[in-house]
Amino acid sequence: MNLTGKSLIGSNSAASSSQTFQAFDPSKGVNIEPDFHFASVDDVNRTASLAAEAFPTFRDLSSSAKSSFLNTIAEEIEKLGDALTQRAMAETGLPEARIKGETARTTGQLRLFAKLVEEGSWVQARIDEADADRQPLPKPDVRSMLRPLGPVAVFGASNFPLAFSVAGGDTASAFAAGCPVIVKAHGSHPGTAELVGRAVQAAVRKCGLPEGVFSMIFGSGREVGTALVEHPEIKAVGFTGSRGGGTALMKLAAEREVPIPVYAEMSSINPMLILPSALASGEGLAAGLAGSITLGVGQFCTNPGLILLQDSPEADQFVKSLAEQLKNAASGVMLNPSIAEAYQSGVERLEKHSEVEVLTAQSRVEGSICSAWASLFEVKAETFVNDQSVAEEVFGPESTIVRYRNEEELLQVIDKLEGQLTGCVHGSTEEFGRLKKAIDALENKVGRLIYNGFPTGVEVCHSIIHGGPYPSTSDGRSTSVGTHAIERFCRLVCYQAAPEEMLPDELKNENPLNILRLINGEWER
Amino acid sequence: MNLTGKSLIGSNSAASSSQTFQAFDPSKGVNIEPDFHFASVDDVNRTASLAAEAFPTFRDLSSSAKSSFLNTIAEEIEKLGDALTQRAMAETGLPEARIKGETARTTGQLRLFAKLVEEGSWVQARIDEADADRQPLPKPDVRSMLRPLGPVAVFGASNFPLAFSVAGGDTASAFAAGCPVIVKAHGSHPGTAELVGRAVQAAVRKCGLPEGVFSMIFGSGREVGTALVEHPEIKAVGFTGSRGGGTALMKLAAEREVPIPVYAEMSSINPMLILPSALASGEGLAAGLAGSITLGVGQFCTNPGLILLQDSPEADQFVKSLAEQLKNAASGVMLNPSIAEAYQSGVERLEKHSEVEVLTAQSRVEGSICSAWASLFEVKAETFVNDQSVAEEVFGPESTIVRYRNEEELLQVIDKLEGQLTGCVHGSTEEFGRLKKAIDALENKVGRLIYNGFPTGVEVCHSIIHGGPYPSTSDGRSTSVGTHAIERFCRLVCYQAAPEEMLPDELKNENPLNILRLINGEWER
Repeated sequence: MNLTGKSLIGSNSAASSSQTFQAFDPSKGVNIEPDFHFASVDDVNRTASLAAEAFPTFRDLSSSAKSSFLNTIAEEIEKLGDALTQRAMAETGLPEARIKGETARTTGQLRLFAKLVEEGSWVQARIDEADADRQPLPKPDVRSMLRPLGPVAVFGASNFPLAFSVAGGDTASAFAAGCPVIVKAHGSHPGTAELVGRAVQAAVRKCGLPEGVFSMIFGSGREVGTALVEHPEIKAVGFTGSRGGGTALMKLAAEREVPIPVYAEMSSINPMLILPSALASGEGLAAGLAGSITLGVGQFCTNPGLILLQDSPEADQFVKSLAEQLKNAASGVMLNPSIAEAYQSGVERLEKHSEVEVLTAQSRVEGSICSAWASLFEVKAETFVNDQSVAEEVFGPESTIVRYRNEEELLQVIDKLEGQLTGCVHGSTEEFGRLKKAIDALENKVGRLIYNGFPTGVEVCHSIIHGGPYPSTSDGRSTSVGTHAIERFCRLVCYQAAPEEMLPDELKNENPLNILRLINGEWER
Repeated sequence: MNLTGKSLIGSNSAASSSQTFQAFDPSKGVNIEPDFHFASVDDVNRTASLAAEAFPTFRDLSSSAKSSFLNTIAEEIEKLGDALTQRAMAETGLPEARIKGETARTTGQLRLFAKLVEEGSWVQARIDEADADRQPLPKPDVRSMLRPLGPVAVFGASNFPLAFSVAGGDTASAFAAGCPVIVKAHGSHPGTAELVGRAVQAAVRKCGLPEGVFSMIFGSGREVGTALVEHPEIKAVGFTGSRGGGTALMKLAAEREVPIPVYAEMSSINPMLILPSALASGEGLAAGLAGSITLGVGQFCTNPGLILLQDSPEADQFVKSLAEQLKNAASGVMLNPSIAEAYQSGVERLEKHSEVEVLTAQSRVEGSICSAWASLFEVKAETFVNDQSVAEEVFGPESTIVRYRNEEELLQVIDKLEGQLTGCVHGSTEEFGRLKKAIDALENKVGRLIYNGFPTGVEVCHSIIHGGPYPSTSDGRSTSVGTHAIERFCRLVCYQAAPEEMLPDELKNENPLNILRLINGEWER
């Protein structure tokens, strides 16, 4: 498939603006053809109008038709085959295995939502039957279920060109809910975005859905991103990116005449508490941690950026070993020059900090604009407690060790932590019990608490929560990964005394979809 | 029980400020003893610190202990007996039957949450079991459930001195979730607030809970309300009141260093679409509607304020009959002078509007500062479409008829509606089918769609949704009434590879609480 460099406006495409950009190959340090055209604000308005027109039909689509749409998207993405892999590799510098794995995760995610929708119980159907004889007042028939919010704006992430991009988790869960989607493609992988966008467009056509169910636009966040979030027809926003970007969207959304929810995944340093008994495993733990820090050149929201260690000779040995592992780790190619630049300046900021000990911070790789080495720093708990800027996220293969002397200092450190996507604890069950207060305090700051494991690698399943207290996400009540994500794009709607004919199938007396429902307070199928 | 006029700070009370106020009897037009003291910002800070201290214990309270706490509050409120009824009647002008009914609703609500918590399945427990042999990567053990957010600030409403006040729906659902509560009492019924607040305080003591689980403060929204919402330990806000008050809280919460969710129920005109066949019932429907408009002197968030009627001789007759009923309805005493004043100026605004036809708008009741008559206005659809200010909420026994000529005009009217708590449709099933497009459009604007019924009277049950798109509430994804309300004060937390000993009971292998759980994608108990 030849790339056109055009935005997808429903079933059409547009190259409205003369302003263009190209993708960049971070491994080779060169631009890649073709030119991609910025969308105009008029284009944005057209996508929003089309989405609003499509909503009533898409909202009322049967479960099986919606499920089939999601499966068709997965098939269309698979059909892209090696063309997608090659283009994504060129645009991101990520290796083949990662791109293939991420493609499988993306299609797997679409199919998981297809299955969820087909099964149907996700709508949380509830029925309380009427009782005309109740005293002092008759009881009405009341029923409720989740219904889609309306058109959703999705901002693709730079670091997951597939799984958190055009047909990633936000898009899949919004579609599954019954919401049309308009994607603002990330400028770092526009070719990948166009390929996947055309696959979604093909699925819309094949399934005979209204064209406005999906659009995808290129352009600057400041112009088309703002126009999209401010558009009255947009009812929710999904975003994965920087804290600056996420909070800017939150502000725009809160200042609208009708404010809308923003689900922004922003930044997280993913603290890891390593207790004494875990240090006994020595090299093993250090190797595992070094692997987690350098995985994907550290470009994960779940990268372990803060390691809490109690002072001891064993801890000294562990730190030495971890620093050694990171020094010996190969350099990697980061996603694009601005990410590499930001990593470099983050590392330099810590190198210059008088209270920060540098354990390893090799300089930039000669001759490669995007390559980076891992780095490791250390601070005293006291330093962290007084100045958490020493632990501000440095996006990339970086981690900072915080050394505490006793449980009191540990509790102070945890108390100062911002909200996080994840927290890890390594140790024995006996130690966990003894330090329950600290672990409870850590749980209160995170979305996912991991025992004796690493934060990188997010299992896509029913139980997973990839979300956490602010500022790790804008709204720590929900998740961007796993089936709970569908709830983000819904609201509860209630029907009172509705004639059977006017009820959605999910709430009809006969339970034609055979879903689990709460009837008069009892769960039944 | 003698009233002290003091704020309740955990297990203590405080009268820090020399600034005082008294309750006002709107029926008699006189102040009522004693003096109530404003809380200071220091008092607010103490309540927040106490709540934060109480949180770890309260969060981990067993289901049965939490359930017993909720039941104990209900018992303590019932013990107040006639003293509560008399004081609430004096402070609100509401009749005895209403106060007794509302007290029963309040204790019933507490007991419903007690039952919900005792049963336990509300936490949405999910387990995905590990699979060490999965290819290409082993599958970790992942579990998740709802956990409480932390201390919640609740702003009592003026119009429900019990059910949406100190121990009302927000407080009951936050307690049920495991969140300590700080109530900012409404200045319109401070004695009622103190009585109920002391009942909650007694329940905290009897159940041996940390004192910070509950506090209640008097004072101005501007000072203590702001201090409360801005306090870093507060994690969510519940509010029922005006749009001005609600949007001010939303702004404060969004501008915090760590933004928090605000659940504000604000304003709603509750459109009612009356189709031709319903007019055949003539007097019956008009009488029912007049009753709904004047119920509680129109002081309900669900008061029917907008009636959509197609032009016809039968419609003329219906309007005449409705106007007649409202003219003949008795005047009623409103909650306080400022509400009565606002009602009067709302009515005058419509009377003066050149495009508004006045059907009945009797003037103020002589010699009674708080009494009010019902009023009814009419506008053409065209007028409403061009200027929705003709249908801005007039809190009180007022309704405006919008006359449309055809379905196209009806759709235009619905399109211009703001978000609403409820929408009603009256007609035959055949008519509903024929006007499905209009009814779907109406559904998209409301939280509860009622067929052939009236919006006043909100059934407290599992299925009910009392919430709707902005601006009827700040967050149309949730409800302030019914068991779904517990979810407002929770977030999803995930545990990966946790030792059995570290898991909450809800997620332990043996399912010791015997709750419904989603295990590997299948619902099991």
